[in-house]
Amino acid sequence: MSEKMSTSTRDRLVVAVAELMRTQGYSAITVKQITAAAGAPMGSLYHHFPHGKVQIAAEALRSTGAAYIQLLPLLMDPHEDLRTAVPAAFDEAARTLEESGWMNMCPVGTVAGEIADSEPALRGAAAEVARDWIDRGTAYFVGRGLGEPAARELILAILCALEGAFILGRTLRSTEPLHAAGRAMAARVDALLAGSEPSLPRDRGAPADY
Amino acid sequence: MSEKMSTSTRDRLVVAVAELMRTQGYSAITVKQITAAAGAPMGSLYHHFPHGKVQIAAEALRSTGAAYIQLLPLLMDPHEDLRTAVPAAFDEAARTLEESGWMNMCPVGTVAGEIADSEPALRGAAAEVARDWIDRGTAYFVGRGLGEPAARELILAILCALEGAFILGRTLRSTEPLHAAGRAMAARVDALLAGSEPSLPRDRGAPADY
Repeated sequence: MSEKMSTSTRDRLVVAVAELMRTQGYSAITVKQITAAAGAPMGSLYHHFPHGKVQIAAEALRSTGAAYIQLLPLLMDPHEDLRTAVPAAFDEAARTLEESGWMNMCPVGTVAGEIADSEPALRGAAAEVARDWIDRGTAYFVGRGLGEPAARELILAILCALEGAFILGRTLRSTEPLHAAGRAMAARVDALLAGSEPSLPRDRGAPADY
Repeated sequence: MSEKMSTSTRDRLVVAVAELMRTQGYSAITVKQITAAAGAPMGSLYHHFPHGKVQIAAEALRSTGAAYIQLLPLLMDPHEDLRTAVPAAFDEAARTLEESGWMNMCPVGTVAGEIADSEPALRGAAAEVARDWIDRGTAYFVGRGLGEPAARELILAILCALEGAFILGRTLRSTEPLHAAGRAMAARVDALLAGSEPSLPRDRGAPADY
Protein backbone atom coordinates (compact mmCIF):
# COMPACT_ATOMS: atom_id res chain seq x y z
CA MET A 1 0.00 0.00 0.00
CA SER A 2 1.36 3.36 -0.97
CA GLU A 3 0.27 4.96 2.29
CA LYS A 4 2.25 2.41 4.23
CA MET A 5 5.34 2.98 2.13
CA SER A 6 5.20 6.73 2.48
CA THR A 7 5.06 6.71 6.27
CA SER A 8 8.18 6.31 8.37
CA THR A 9 9.02 3.11 10.20
CA ARG A 10 8.61 5.01 13.47
CA ASP A 11 5.08 6.09 12.56
CA ARG A 12 4.16 2.60 11.38
CA LEU A 13 5.24 1.15 14.73
CA VAL A 14 3.02 3.64 16.60
CA VAL A 15 0.03 2.96 14.35
CA ALA A 16 0.54 -0.80 14.69
CA VAL A 17 0.50 -0.60 18.50
CA ALA A 18 -2.55 1.69 18.51
CA GLU A 19 -4.45 -0.81 16.35
CA LEU A 20 -3.32 -3.80 18.40
CA MET A 21 -4.35 -2.03 21.64
CA ARG A 22 -7.81 -1.50 20.17
CA THR A 23 -8.44 -5.19 19.62
CA GLN A 24 -6.54 -6.90 22.43
CA GLY A 25 -5.54 -4.34 25.04
CA TYR A 26 -1.95 -3.67 26.09
CA SER A 27 -0.61 -6.75 27.90
CA ALA A 28 -1.48 -9.28 25.20
CA ILE A 29 0.63 -7.45 22.58
CA THR A 30 3.95 -9.07 21.71
CA VAL A 31 6.95 -7.34 20.18
CA LYS A 32 6.75 -9.87 17.33
CA GLN A 33 3.16 -8.80 16.56
CA ILE A 34 4.23 -5.17 16.48
CA THR A 35 7.08 -5.65 14.04
CA ALA A 36 4.96 -7.95 11.84
CA ALA A 37 2.07 -5.46 11.71
CA ALA A 38 4.43 -2.55 11.02
CA GLY A 39 6.54 -4.47 8.53
CA ALA A 40 9.61 -3.39 10.49
CA PRO A 41 12.65 -5.35 11.65
CA MET A 42 13.10 -5.91 15.39
CA GLY A 43 16.23 -3.74 15.40
CA SER A 44 14.32 -0.73 14.14
CA LEU A 45 11.81 -1.06 16.97
CA TYR A 46 14.50 -0.70 19.66
CA HIS A 47 16.31 1.91 17.59
CA HIS A 48 13.28 4.19 17.59
CA PHE A 49 11.96 3.13 21.00
CA PRO A 50 14.76 2.06 23.36
CA HIS A 51 12.20 1.26 26.09
CA GLY A 52 10.27 -1.01 23.74
CA LYS A 53 6.58 -1.77 23.84
CA VAL A 54 5.65 0.54 26.73
CA GLN A 55 7.25 3.53 25.02
CA ILE A 56 5.46 2.92 21.71
CA ALA A 57 2.19 2.40 23.59
CA ALA A 58 2.58 5.72 25.41
CA GLU A 59 3.06 7.50 22.10
CA ALA A 60 0.12 5.61 20.56
CA LEU A 61 -2.13 6.73 23.44
CA ARG A 62 -1.03 10.34 22.93
CA SER A 63 -1.63 10.32 19.19
CA THR A 64 -4.98 8.50 19.26
CA GLY A 65 -6.04 10.64 22.23
CA ALA A 66 -5.28 13.83 20.30
CA ALA A 67 -7.27 12.58 17.31
CA TYR A 68 -10.18 11.50 19.49
CA ILE A 69 -10.81 14.90 21.13
CA GLN A 70 -10.95 16.54 17.70
CA LEU A 71 -14.26 14.71 17.25
CA LEU A 72 -15.83 16.97 19.88
CA PRO A 73 -16.16 20.12 17.72
CA LEU A 74 -16.63 17.99 14.61
CA LEU A 75 -19.70 16.27 16.07
CA MET A 76 -21.14 19.22 17.99
CA ASP A 77 -20.51 22.29 15.81
CA PRO A 78 -23.31 21.42 13.35
CA HIS A 79 -25.91 21.73 16.14
CA GLU A 80 -26.75 25.26 17.19
CA ASP A 81 -28.36 24.20 20.47
CA LEU A 82 -26.11 22.47 22.99
CA ARG A 83 -29.17 20.55 24.20
CA THR A 84 -29.33 18.75 20.84
CA ALA A 85 -25.59 18.73 20.13
CA VAL A 86 -24.64 16.56 23.10
CA PRO A 87 -27.13 13.67 22.66
CA ALA A 88 -26.61 13.83 18.87
CA ALA A 89 -22.90 13.17 19.39
CA PHE A 90 -23.70 10.11 21.53
CA ASP A 91 -26.18 8.85 18.89
CA GLU A 92 -23.51 9.30 16.22
CA ALA A 93 -21.02 7.35 18.34
CA ALA A 94 -23.65 4.60 18.74
CA ARG A 95 -24.14 4.38 14.97
CA THR A 96 -20.39 4.22 14.33
CA LEU A 97 -19.94 1.59 17.04
CA GLU A 98 -22.63 -0.66 15.62
CA GLU A 99 -21.56 -0.17 11.98
CA SER A 100 -17.97 -1.02 12.86
CA GLY A 101 -19.03 -4.35 14.36
CA TRP A 102 -18.54 -3.10 17.95
CA MET A 103 -14.96 -2.02 17.45
CA ASN A 104 -13.06 -0.36 20.27
CA MET A 105 -13.22 3.21 18.98
CA CYS A 106 -10.44 4.55 21.19
CA PRO A 107 -7.91 2.48 23.13
CA VAL A 108 -7.13 5.21 25.67
CA GLY A 109 -9.95 4.35 28.08
CA THR A 110 -9.65 0.57 27.89
CA VAL A 111 -5.85 0.51 28.14
CA ALA A 112 -5.92 3.04 30.98
CA GLY A 113 -8.36 0.81 32.85
CA GLU A 114 -6.19 -2.24 32.21
CA ILE A 115 -2.84 -0.78 33.28
CA ALA A 116 -3.63 1.94 35.86
CA ASP A 117 -2.19 -0.17 38.69
CA SER A 118 0.55 -2.04 36.84
CA GLU A 119 2.29 0.27 34.33
CA PRO A 120 3.03 3.67 35.92
CA ALA A 121 4.66 5.18 32.81
CA LEU A 122 1.72 4.25 30.64
CA ARG A 123 -0.74 5.50 33.24
CA GLY A 124 1.15 8.80 33.17
CA ALA A 125 0.70 9.02 29.40
CA ALA A 126 -3.03 8.21 29.73
CA ALA A 127 -3.36 10.89 32.43
CA GLU A 128 -1.75 13.45 30.10
CA VAL A 129 -4.31 12.55 27.45
CA ALA A 130 -7.20 12.76 29.91
CA ARG A 131 -6.05 16.18 31.19
CA ASP A 132 -5.79 17.38 27.60
CA TRP A 133 -9.34 16.14 26.87
CA ILE A 134 -10.67 17.94 29.96
CA ASP A 135 -8.86 21.20 29.10
CA ARG A 136 -9.91 21.20 25.45
CA GLY A 137 -13.45 20.14 26.28
CA THR A 138 -13.74 22.88 28.90
CA ALA A 139 -12.52 25.47 26.37
CA TYR A 140 -14.97 24.17 23.78
CA PHE A 141 -17.99 24.44 26.07
CA VAL A 142 -16.89 27.89 27.28
CA GLY A 143 -16.93 28.81 23.59
CA ARG A 144 -20.50 27.52 23.44
CA GLY A 145 -21.60 29.84 26.23
CA LEU A 146 -21.09 27.96 29.50
CA GLY A 147 -19.15 29.41 32.42
CA GLU A 148 -15.78 27.76 33.11
CA PRO A 149 -16.89 25.63 36.12
CA ALA A 150 -20.01 24.44 34.27
CA ALA A 151 -17.99 23.73 31.11
CA ARG A 152 -15.48 21.63 33.06
CA GLU A 153 -18.32 19.87 34.86
CA LEU A 154 -19.93 18.99 31.53
CA ILE A 155 -16.85 17.65 29.78
CA LEU A 156 -15.99 15.51 32.83
CA ALA A 157 -19.51 14.04 32.89
CA ILE A 158 -19.43 13.45 29.12
CA LEU A 159 -16.05 11.70 29.19
CA CYS A 160 -17.15 9.42 32.05
CA ALA A 161 -20.46 8.62 30.34
CA LEU A 162 -18.81 8.00 26.98
CA GLU A 163 -16.01 5.75 28.23
CA GLY A 164 -18.44 3.71 30.32
CA ALA A 165 -21.00 3.49 27.50
CA PHE A 166 -18.36 2.26 25.06
CA ILE A 167 -17.45 -0.56 27.43
CA LEU A 168 -21.05 -1.56 28.15
CA GLY A 169 -22.05 -1.21 24.49
CA ARG A 170 -19.17 -3.39 23.27
CA THR A 171 -19.81 -5.93 26.00
CA LEU A 172 -23.55 -6.16 25.31
CA ARG A 173 -23.25 -5.62 21.55
CA SER A 174 -25.92 -2.97 21.95
CA THR A 175 -26.29 0.74 21.24
CA GLU A 176 -28.66 1.16 24.20
CA PRO A 177 -25.99 2.30 26.72
CA LEU A 178 -24.74 5.06 24.40
CA HIS A 179 -28.27 6.34 23.72
CA ALA A 180 -29.16 6.29 27.43
CA ALA A 181 -25.88 8.03 28.31
CA GLY A 182 -26.57 10.68 25.65
CA ARG A 183 -30.03 11.38 27.05
CA ALA A 184 -28.54 11.64 30.55
CA MET A 185 -26.02 14.18 29.28
CA ALA A 186 -28.85 16.18 27.66
CA ALA A 187 -30.41 16.43 31.12
CA ARG A 188 -27.02 17.57 32.46
CA VAL A 189 -26.80 20.31 29.82
CA ASP A 190 -30.32 21.46 30.71
CA ALA A 191 -29.47 21.79 34.39
CA LEU A 192 -26.17 23.58 33.69
CA LEU A 193 -27.80 26.00 31.24
CA ALA A 194 -30.57 26.69 33.75
CA GLY A 195 -27.78 27.66 36.16
CA SER A 196 -29.63 25.93 38.95
CA GLU A 197 -26.54 24.23 40.33
CA PRO A 198 -25.81 24.88 44.00
CA SER A 199 -22.05 25.39 44.35
CA LEU A 200 -20.61 23.54 41.39
CA PRO A 201 -17.31 21.73 41.87
CA ARG A 202 -17.19 20.65 45.47
CA ASP A 203 -13.56 19.72 45.04
CA ARG A 204 -11.07 18.80 42.40
CA GLY A 205 -9.91 15.54 43.88
CA ALA A 206 -6.32 15.30 44.98
CA PRO A 207 -4.62 18.36 43.50
CA ALA A 208 -1.16 17.45 44.78
CA ASP A 209 -1.02 14.36 42.59
CA TYR A 210 -3.01 15.83 39.80
CA MET B 1 -4.73 -17.71 57.43
CA SER B 2 -7.69 -19.62 58.76
CA GLU B 3 -10.05 -18.09 56.20
CA LYS B 4 -7.83 -19.35 53.42
CA MET B 5 -7.71 -22.85 54.89
CA SER B 6 -11.45 -23.11 55.28
CA THR B 7 -12.28 -22.19 51.68
CA SER B 8 -12.07 -24.77 48.92
CA THR B 9 -9.26 -24.85 46.38
CA ARG B 10 -11.82 -24.04 43.70
CA ASP B 11 -12.96 -20.89 45.54
CA ARG B 12 -9.37 -19.83 46.20
CA LEU B 13 -8.59 -20.06 42.48
CA VAL B 14 -11.58 -17.83 41.63
CA VAL B 15 -10.68 -15.26 44.29
CA ALA B 16 -7.04 -15.25 43.15
CA VAL B 17 -8.01 -14.52 39.54
CA ALA B 18 -10.50 -11.82 40.61
CA GLU B 19 -7.75 -10.08 42.61
CA LEU B 20 -5.17 -10.46 39.83
CA MET B 21 -7.65 -9.03 37.27
CA ARG B 22 -8.12 -5.99 39.51
CA THR B 23 -4.47 -5.04 39.47
CA GLN B 24 -3.24 -6.16 36.06
CA GLY B 25 -6.20 -6.96 33.82
CA TYR B 26 -6.80 -10.33 32.20
CA SER B 27 -4.08 -10.93 29.60
CA ALA B 28 -1.12 -10.31 31.88
CA ILE B 29 -2.18 -13.06 34.29
CA THR B 30 -0.17 -16.28 34.12
CA VAL B 31 -1.31 -19.70 35.28
CA LYS B 32 1.73 -19.74 37.55
CA GLN B 33 0.58 -16.52 39.26
CA ILE B 34 -2.86 -18.01 39.82
CA THR B 35 -1.66 -21.20 41.46
CA ALA B 36 0.87 -19.28 43.57
CA ALA B 37 -1.75 -16.79 44.78
CA ALA B 38 -4.26 -19.55 45.49
CA GLY B 39 -1.70 -21.88 47.07
CA ALA B 40 -2.92 -24.61 44.75
CA PRO B 41 -1.04 -27.12 42.60
CA MET B 42 -1.24 -26.76 38.81
CA GLY B 43 -3.10 -30.07 38.55
CA SER B 44 -5.94 -28.82 40.75
CA LEU B 45 -6.41 -25.78 38.51
CA TYR B 46 -7.09 -27.92 35.44
CA HIS B 47 -9.07 -30.40 37.53
CA HIS B 48 -11.54 -27.72 38.61
CA PHE B 49 -11.31 -25.65 35.42
CA PRO B 50 -10.55 -27.80 32.35
CA HIS B 51 -10.54 -24.68 30.13
CA GLY B 52 -7.97 -23.01 32.37
CA LYS B 53 -7.54 -19.29 32.91
CA VAL B 54 -10.47 -18.10 30.76
CA GLN B 55 -12.91 -20.33 32.64
CA ILE B 56 -11.76 -19.16 36.08
CA ALA B 57 -11.89 -15.55 34.87
CA ALA B 58 -15.48 -15.97 33.67
CA GLU B 59 -16.48 -17.28 37.09
CA ALA B 60 -14.54 -14.50 38.82
CA LEU B 61 -16.39 -11.88 36.75
CA ARG B 62 -19.73 -13.46 37.68
CA SER B 63 -18.96 -13.59 41.40
CA THR B 64 -17.46 -10.09 41.70
CA GLY B 65 -20.26 -8.74 39.48
CA ALA B 66 -22.90 -10.24 41.78
CA ALA B 67 -21.20 -8.72 44.83
CA TYR B 68 -20.83 -5.33 43.13
CA ILE B 69 -24.54 -4.79 42.34
CA GLN B 70 -25.42 -5.50 45.99
CA LEU B 71 -23.79 -2.16 46.76
CA LEU B 72 -26.66 -0.39 45.00
CA PRO B 73 -29.31 -0.84 47.74
CA LEU B 74 -26.61 -0.73 50.41
CA LEU B 75 -25.48 2.74 49.32
CA MET B 76 -28.86 4.17 48.36
CA ASP B 77 -31.34 2.80 50.89
CA PRO B 78 -30.20 5.16 53.68
CA HIS B 79 -31.27 8.18 51.61
CA GLU B 80 -34.99 8.77 51.43
CA ASP B 81 -34.77 11.11 48.43
CA LEU B 82 -33.44 9.59 45.21
CA ARG B 83 -32.05 13.03 44.35
CA THR B 84 -29.62 12.76 47.25
CA ALA B 85 -29.16 8.96 47.15
CA VAL B 86 -27.58 8.86 43.68
CA PRO B 87 -24.88 11.53 44.07
CA ALA B 88 -24.20 10.29 47.62
CA ALA B 89 -23.38 6.84 46.22
CA PHE B 90 -20.89 8.41 43.77
CA ASP B 91 -19.33 10.46 46.57
CA GLU B 92 -19.00 7.30 48.66
CA ALA B 93 -17.34 5.50 45.72
CA ALA B 94 -14.95 8.46 45.37
CA ARG B 95 -13.98 8.25 49.04
CA THR B 96 -13.41 4.49 48.85
CA LEU B 97 -11.38 4.86 45.66
CA GLU B 98 -9.09 7.49 47.17
CA GLU B 99 -8.74 5.69 50.51
CA SER B 100 -7.81 2.45 48.76
CA GLY B 101 -4.96 4.15 46.89
CA TRP B 102 -6.89 4.22 43.59
CA MET B 103 -7.58 0.51 43.53
CA ASN B 104 -9.65 -0.98 40.72
CA MET B 105 -12.86 -1.50 42.68
CA CYS B 106 -14.42 -3.95 40.21
CA PRO B 107 -12.62 -5.80 37.45
CA VAL B 108 -15.76 -6.40 35.38
CA GLY B 109 -15.66 -3.10 33.48
CA THR B 110 -11.91 -2.98 32.90
CA VAL B 111 -11.61 -6.63 31.86
CA ALA B 112 -14.69 -6.32 29.61
CA GLY B 113 -13.08 -3.33 27.91
CA GLU B 114 -9.80 -5.19 27.50
CA ILE B 115 -11.19 -8.43 26.03
CA ALA B 116 -14.46 -7.49 24.24
CA ASP B 117 -12.88 -8.11 20.83
CA SER B 118 -10.48 -10.91 21.66
CA GLU B 119 -12.07 -13.35 24.15
CA PRO B 120 -15.66 -14.17 23.12
CA ALA B 121 -16.35 -16.53 26.04
CA LEU B 122 -15.20 -13.97 28.57
CA ARG B 123 -17.15 -11.20 26.83
CA GLY B 124 -20.21 -13.44 27.13
CA ALA B 125 -19.68 -13.76 30.87
CA ALA B 126 -19.24 -9.99 31.20
CA ALA B 127 -22.44 -9.44 29.18
CA GLU B 128 -24.33 -11.76 31.56
CA VAL B 129 -23.08 -9.67 34.48
CA ALA B 130 -24.03 -6.40 32.76
CA ARG B 131 -27.53 -7.67 31.94
CA ASP B 132 -27.93 -8.75 35.56
CA TRP B 133 -26.84 -5.29 36.77
CA ILE B 134 -29.34 -3.63 34.42
CA ASP B 135 -32.20 -5.92 35.49
CA ARG B 136 -31.51 -5.59 39.22
CA GLY B 137 -30.93 -1.85 38.96
CA THR B 138 -34.15 -1.38 37.03
CA ALA B 139 -36.07 -3.36 39.68
CA TYR B 140 -34.43 -1.31 42.43
CA PHE B 141 -35.40 2.04 40.93
CA VAL B 142 -38.93 0.80 40.19
CA GLY B 143 -39.07 0.02 43.91
CA ARG B 144 -38.03 3.62 44.54
CA GLY B 145 -40.97 4.94 42.53
CA LEU B 146 -39.78 5.31 38.95
CA GLY B 147 -41.67 3.80 36.01
CA GLU B 148 -39.95 0.85 34.34
CA PRO B 149 -38.57 2.73 31.29
CA ALA B 150 -37.26 5.57 33.49
CA ALA B 151 -35.76 3.08 35.95
CA ARG B 152 -33.94 1.24 33.16
CA GLU B 153 -32.81 4.56 31.70
CA LEU B 154 -31.39 5.60 35.07
CA ILE B 155 -29.47 2.40 35.85
CA LEU B 156 -27.96 2.41 32.34
CA ALA B 157 -26.81 6.01 32.74
CA ILE B 158 -25.43 5.30 36.23
CA LEU B 159 -23.49 2.21 35.12
CA CYS B 160 -21.95 4.09 32.18
CA ALA B 161 -21.06 7.10 34.35
CA LEU B 162 -19.63 4.93 37.12
CA GLU B 163 -17.49 2.69 34.90
CA GLY B 164 -16.12 5.69 33.02
CA ALA B 165 -15.52 7.67 36.21
CA PHE B 166 -13.59 4.78 37.77
CA ILE B 167 -11.27 4.65 34.76
CA LEU B 168 -10.73 8.43 34.65
CA GLY B 169 -10.37 8.66 38.42
CA ARG B 170 -7.77 5.86 38.60
CA THR B 171 -5.92 7.32 35.61
CA LEU B 172 -5.84 10.87 37.02
CA ARG B 173 -5.53 9.78 40.66
CA SER B 174 -8.41 12.16 41.32
CA THR B 175 -11.91 11.96 42.79
CA GLU B 176 -13.12 14.78 40.53
CA PRO B 177 -14.56 12.52 37.77
CA LEU B 178 -16.66 10.54 40.28
CA HIS B 179 -18.04 13.71 41.90
CA ALA B 180 -18.84 15.28 38.52
CA ALA B 181 -20.46 12.05 37.32
CA GLY B 182 -22.54 11.91 40.50
CA ARG B 183 -23.77 15.48 40.03
CA ALA B 184 -24.66 14.66 36.41
CA MET B 185 -26.67 11.66 37.60
CA ALA B 186 -28.50 13.87 40.12
CA ALA B 187 -29.59 16.02 37.17
CA ARG B 188 -30.72 12.83 35.38
CA VAL B 189 -32.82 11.81 38.40
CA ASP B 190 -34.39 15.29 38.49
CA ALA B 191 -35.43 15.11 34.84
CA LEU B 192 -36.77 11.56 35.17
CA LEU B 193 -38.74 12.40 38.34
CA ALA B 194 -40.14 15.49 36.63
CA GLY B 195 -41.39 13.10 33.92
CA SER B 196 -40.44 15.67 31.29
CA GLU B 197 -38.79 13.12 28.99
CA PRO B 198 -40.15 13.05 25.43
CA SER B 199 -40.39 9.37 24.37
CA LEU B 200 -37.89 7.60 26.55
CA PRO B 201 -36.00 4.66 25.07
CA ARG B 202 -35.69 5.30 21.35
CA ASP B 203 -34.44 1.76 20.88
CA ARG B 204 -32.82 -1.07 22.74
CA GLY B 205 -29.84 -1.60 20.52
CA ALA B 206 -29.56 -4.82 18.64
CA PRO B 207 -32.08 -7.13 20.33
CA ALA B 208 -31.18 -10.19 18.24
CA ASP B 209 -27.70 -10.33 19.69
CA TYR B 210 -28.66 -9.03 23.07
